[in-house]
Amino acid sequence: MRDDFLLHSKTAETLYKSVRDLPVYDYHCHLSPQEIWEDKPFTDVTSLMLDHDHYKWRLMRSAGIREELITGHRSSVGISSQERFRAYAQALEGAAGNPLYHWTHMELSEFFGIGDALTADNADIIRERANAFLRDTGMSPRSVLEKERVRLVVTTDDPADELEYHKLLSGSGLTNLRMTPAFRPDRVLMLTKVGTPEGFRGYLNRLGEVCGAEIFNLSTLKEALERRMQSFCALDCRFADIGIPYFPSKPSGEGSAERAFLTAAGGGIPDDADFNAYLWDMYLFIGKLCHDMRVLLQLHTAVARNVNSRQFRRIGADSGIDCISDPISVRAFTELLDAMYSEKALPEMIVYTLDPGSIEPLAAAAGCFRGVRLGAAWWFNDHEAGIRETLEIAARQGSLSSFFGMLTDSRSFLSYVRHDYFRRIASDLVASWIDKGEFMGSGEDVLGKISCFNAMNYCTESRI
Amino acid sequence: MRDDFLLHSKTAETLYKSVRDLPVYDYHCHLSPQEIWEDKPFTDVTSLMLDHDHYKWRLMRSAGIREELITGHRSSVGISSQERFRAYAQALEGAAGNPLYHWTHMELSEFFGIGDALTADNADIIRERANAFLRDTGMSPRSVLEKERVRLVVTTDDPADELEYHKLLSGSGLTNLRMTPAFRPDRVLMLTKVGTPEGFRGYLNRLGEVCGAEIFNLSTLKEALERRMQSFCALDCRFADIGIPYFPSKPSGEGSAERAFLTAAGGGIPDDADFNAYLWDMYLFIGKLCHDMRVLLQLHTAVARNVNSRQFRRIGADSGIDCISDPISVRAFTELLDAMYSEKALPEMIVYTLDPGSIEPLAAAAGCFRGVRLGAAWWFNDHEAGIRETLEIAARQGSLSSFFGMLTDSRSFLSYVRHDYFRRIASDLVASWIDKGEFMGSGEDVLGKISCFNAMNYCTESRI
Amino acid sequence: MRDDFLLHSKTAETLYKSVRDLPVYDYHCHLSPQEIWEDKPFTDVTSLMLDHDHYKWRLMRSAGIREELITGHRSSVGISSQERFRAYAQALEGAAGNPLYHWTHMELSEFFGIGDALTADNADIIRERANAFLRDTGMSPRSVLEKERVRLVVTTDDPADELEYHKLLSGSGLTNLRMTPAFRPDRVLMLTKVGTPEGFRGYLNRLGEVCGAEIFNLSTLKEALERRMQSFCALDCRFADIGIPYFPSKPSGEGSAERAFLTAAGGGIPDDADFNAYLWDMYLFIGKLCHDMRVLLQLHTAVARNVNSRQFRRIGADSGIDCISDPISVRAFTELLDAMYSEKALPEMIVYTLDPGSIEPLAAAAGCFRGVRLGAAWWFNDHEAGIRETLEIAARQGSLSSFFGMLTDSRSFLSYVRHDYFRRIASDLVASWIDKGEFMGSGEDVLGKISCFNAMNYCTESRI
Repeated sequence: MRDDFLLHSKTAETLYKSVRDLPVYDYHCHLSPQEIWEDKPFTDVTSLMLDHDHYKWRLMRSAGIREELITGHRSSVGISSQERFRAYAQALEGAAGNPLYHWTHMELSEFFGIGDALTADNADIIRERANAFLRDTGMSPRSVLEKERVRLVVTTDDPADELEYHKLLSGSGLTNLRMTPAFRPDRVLMLTKVGTPEGFRGYLNRLGEVCGAEIFNLSTLKEALERRMQSFCALDCRFADIGIPYFPSKPSGEGSAERAFLTAAGGGIPDDADFNAYLWDMYLFIGKLCHDMRVLLQLHTAVARNVNSRQFRRIGADSGIDCISDPISVRAFTELLDAMYSEKALPEMIVYTLDPGSIEPLAAAAGCFRGVRLGAAWWFNDHEAGIRETLEIAARQGSLSSFFGMLTDSRSFLSYVRHDYFRRIASDLVASWIDKGEFMGSGEDVLGKISCFNAMNYCTESRI
Repeated sequence: MRDDFLLHSKTAETLYKSVRDLPVYDYHCHLSPQEIWEDKPFTDVTSLMLDHDHYKWRLMRSAGIREELITGHRSSVGISSQERFRAYAQALEGAAGNPLYHWTHMELSEFFGIGDALTADNADIIRERANAFLRDTGMSPRSVLEKERVRLVVTTDDPADELEYHKLLSGSGLTNLRMTPAFRPDRVLMLTKVGTPEGFRGYLNRLGEVCGAEIFNLSTLKEALERRMQSFCALDCRFADIGIPYFPSKPSGEGSAERAFLTAAGGGIPDDADFNAYLWDMYLFIGKLCHDMRVLLQLHTAVARNVNSRQFRRIGADSGIDCISDPISVRAFTELLDAMYSEKALPEMIVYTLDPGSIEPLAAAAGCFRGVRLGAAWWFNDHEAGIRETLEIAARQGSLSSFFGMLTDSRSFLSYVRHDYFRRIASDLVASWIDKGEFMGSGEDVLGKISCFNAMNYCTESRI
Repeated sequence: MRDDFLLHSKTAETLYKSVRDLPVYDYHCHLSPQEIWEDKPFTDVTSLMLDHDHYKWRLMRSAGIREELITGHRSSVGISSQERFRAYAQALEGAAGNPLYHWTHMELSEFFGIGDALTADNADIIRERANAFLRDTGMSPRSVLEKERVRLVVTTDDPADELEYHKLLSGSGLTNLRMTPAFRPDRVLMLTKVGTPEGFRGYLNRLGEVCGAEIFNLSTLKEALERRMQSFCALDCRFADIGIPYFPSKPSGEGSAERAFLTAAGGGIPDDADFNAYLWDMYLFIGKLCHDMRVLLQLHTAVARNVNSRQFRRIGADSGIDCISDPISVRAFTELLDAMYSEKALPEMIVYTLDPGSIEPLAAAAGCFRGVRLGAAWWFNDHEAGIRETLEIAARQGSLSSFFGMLTDSRSFLSYVRHDYFRRIASDLVASWIDKGEFMGSGEDVLGKISCFNAMNYCTESRI
């Protein structure tokens, strides 16, 4: 892409220069701690670009590419790396208006110095150039992070995770890169609703083991979670994260949290009222834990996962069969925040939604509770128009200077170009206000905050 | 309107030229097969423009025009054609920002060579010029279709329809124009919910007659529908269509499809659970029928019909008293698709919604199922911003090159200018991406596909 | 702000000049009748700008300002006016993209002749200049209204209000300024759902007293309301207003309106079905009252009030802790309109919603009922993009020339600059259509109507 990509005025170019080279504090992603620790060089651009990126898989499906050319390592026995790259190039060539068109070309340009438009015709040549580049440079996970000025990677981790690689990395004396865990207790919260081979009881045993305790009721569960949170915090955890698509309702009194837990721990399935009571109770508990330990709680809402069950059985989760759920309840959200705040247990919070129609209502609701913020455009909203719209909403419903900024939320190391994408769009937006006389500041201050400093200051300030 | 109407750059003008003269495959409309077959010349521009166009009626009401000047043939005994045309001109004159302002002037320009802005002042003169033009040229349904390069008209037909005019036209040796039926079983699906003089039992008798069978239970109903679908396909039917506003829920086991049918056939009203079970069963049945016979299934959702009952009793259906319904359930949609796909009975599908807030969620949901696509901007969304937004959503949530393109969905022959409207907007959108460096292809390929070739290729390819 | 603020073309500037100096008919606001009557000069810009403006409070909270610096008169014992003004300036300085950034600078420029950008650095100087200006000019409520060419102020009043200040003002012989009441029966409709010290029974007593009647059942309640409406109309009331966030459902027959009333009047809490039946009955009654007395009924929907209960107990209502509610039901809206129209009791109506996703569905629904209109962008939607979007929706779903125009809905006298804000945005929008060849009229006619004349004509035309 051109140097002035997404920058539609001189003011935008100037503002962008002021934030372009700022460091990245990636406060929410799904990178593998093991891969970061092991730091094995990449060898194949197809694998690097396509293996974990279900955004790209969806585009290929939409373009009519055969399934075996898509998912690669999961279902493509006998399909060559060359064929898959060519198939992706073919899909991309017609993908005008898709963010992958931008991201892919930014990835090729930023990491491989390749400025050509990728097409089915030149796919083989570009793949060979990229692979030669990988061989010549030894590009690896950490070299990518360094190139992208990533100072902090916040991974997403289950409370039962022993955080082995976080310990190794934090003990290794690396000064330029920190990696800290985020506390994501979804498996605890969802009880038996997430089926796994070990089952909920097996999970509880594992969680108990990692913190040396027996978990047999709600109270011992909470103790275990508190201990795990302490262990996370000992590794400088500053973020927790809940990925449950909706908010629990304020219980009417019929359900029992304890009964839900005991039922699930015994291998049964709690009824809806008990499950809701359990969720409500646990949200308040985790909220209080976060509040007391100064951990920022992120809520990721309005996703429907694995909606294509036949495809799910074939290729598993995180394979491009998730979508936007039905609208979530703003009322449930404010009742939850109200309960937390009433108990003086409301932590700092960032809320994300996949439903574009909920962004503005959530922003307005967040504005009723100090320290609760709207999050950056997420997943199906993470495209040029969505980023712009989310920034505009954050700006008009509150103080843009308080916006927490960009995160990658990605499984792919190349996704760090999205920080550049965000900075360009944000610069262009603020510049357009300045040029139209709608904002009279320089814009550098607000852009610096939302591009880097708000997250940096939060992540580096003392916890006390 | 000016030649460069809606084209805001040189690139847009160039791209538009590449698609302007492509043929039209109108794969969903409500034109009358009889009128197309009979091909009687039009004699009065008021009647041609206003008699069936409830979009225009709504605008006139909103502008405060008296009702008797609006609906014309339905309630305006003693109102002259001149008065009605003048009234419409008066409403239009103040309708800045309304798509009818654009369409009407495109209609006047394209069909009558009249380039003036229509106002209350010049309404009489313009009406006289237009009527003189009709007299002089003998403009008729088919001459309009030919002028607009319409190669295929897909009408919307009840399974009980004998398709008399389709047979006549297909047997007439016309080479330039095809007319094929679309299978729309709404009356079957809605049971007694659509009241008609003949009643549901009467309807069943008629349906049985047309395929020479007795319909007395669910199984004989399905046989009859399958036979009708075969007859439709013998007339080259490639599309089915369901106009029920919402999706049935996955049945919990309480309702009985059979009982719903028997109750309705006996003149009763099925209860909600039975009706839902019936709908679910029939959607799966029709889905399988479409899948097996390679018929593309269209779903038109989120409409609330005839919401003004006093007006409905006075002037009937399709008279401008429909609106956007409450949001539809994306979850019900994905559960339906999931059930179809699990049974290997998911046909190609296009989904439309009247609710602007559902467009993006439906697009994301469609992306989880191969062959399911978001449809073009429909009805209350079929305006410049809505067309642009729908294209942007289709582009960012999938491959724009797979978008099926424009349809008229109209009862008016003059509505074919909307294909030109669509092509201008699409050209301008893709051009803006190219000019901003956000797309590096020529744009002609993707525009050709969504303006004509995707629909053309589907409609003309061999069925096997 | 610059003279051409929000005007992006020569055409926009020209059109704006045609409406800039038109009078203002503010048909819905929350100004205090007492303050308008008493007309005491303002003495402190901090108090004038911040005391009642919870929009500004929310911005300050979002910017991280301490609570005691925000709410001023409510909780800030010992906080000086200077500190509060400085704190606001600090919040504003980073509020790029927030409408308050525009409004505040328009207020400073329009009322104080101050053209500088307000920052934390110059806050003290600007405050002193503004206060000196207040001292020198004796600026007062009525001088503000006169400066802003406000010919009519429609306040919002409870049926039990004696309208003392309306009587005083209307008897005072003022010719340039009219102040009329709007009939807002929310307390009657909500029964015990709005807790107040006097309770519902106490309220009924007060209402009975003001119209000299005893209220002991639904029928005497309706008589009292009718009398009060007559008294309001004697003071030239032309508007009623309901602020209940949602629409009642069409009753299924189980609930009893009478029982709901008697329960509430006896100090009890009606059950949901009774309450809904009561609401439905009262909406129809008030609709008929408005219809018969030619009073325009406004409906303000989709607000969730006082969602932060701990904050509410501390600082009360109207303090920035309201937000957008869950989506409202379009179906309930059309069923209500249908019932009114069926009983020939549908008054002229304007409907507002806080939920941006409901604006277009409500506009489409309104289009099914003559005399029902979409209202101007309200509260959380009352920003540049929201005003533009609402105008675009009104334009494409009906006749923009019928749009009723801007209102302030404000508690602050300085808010009259928002009429100028609206006129600039509307001028720019219509100009953009003209410049792109999408509208061929001059634009002055439609802009005049929506900036002033539609409201003026309604408010000044004879009632018969």
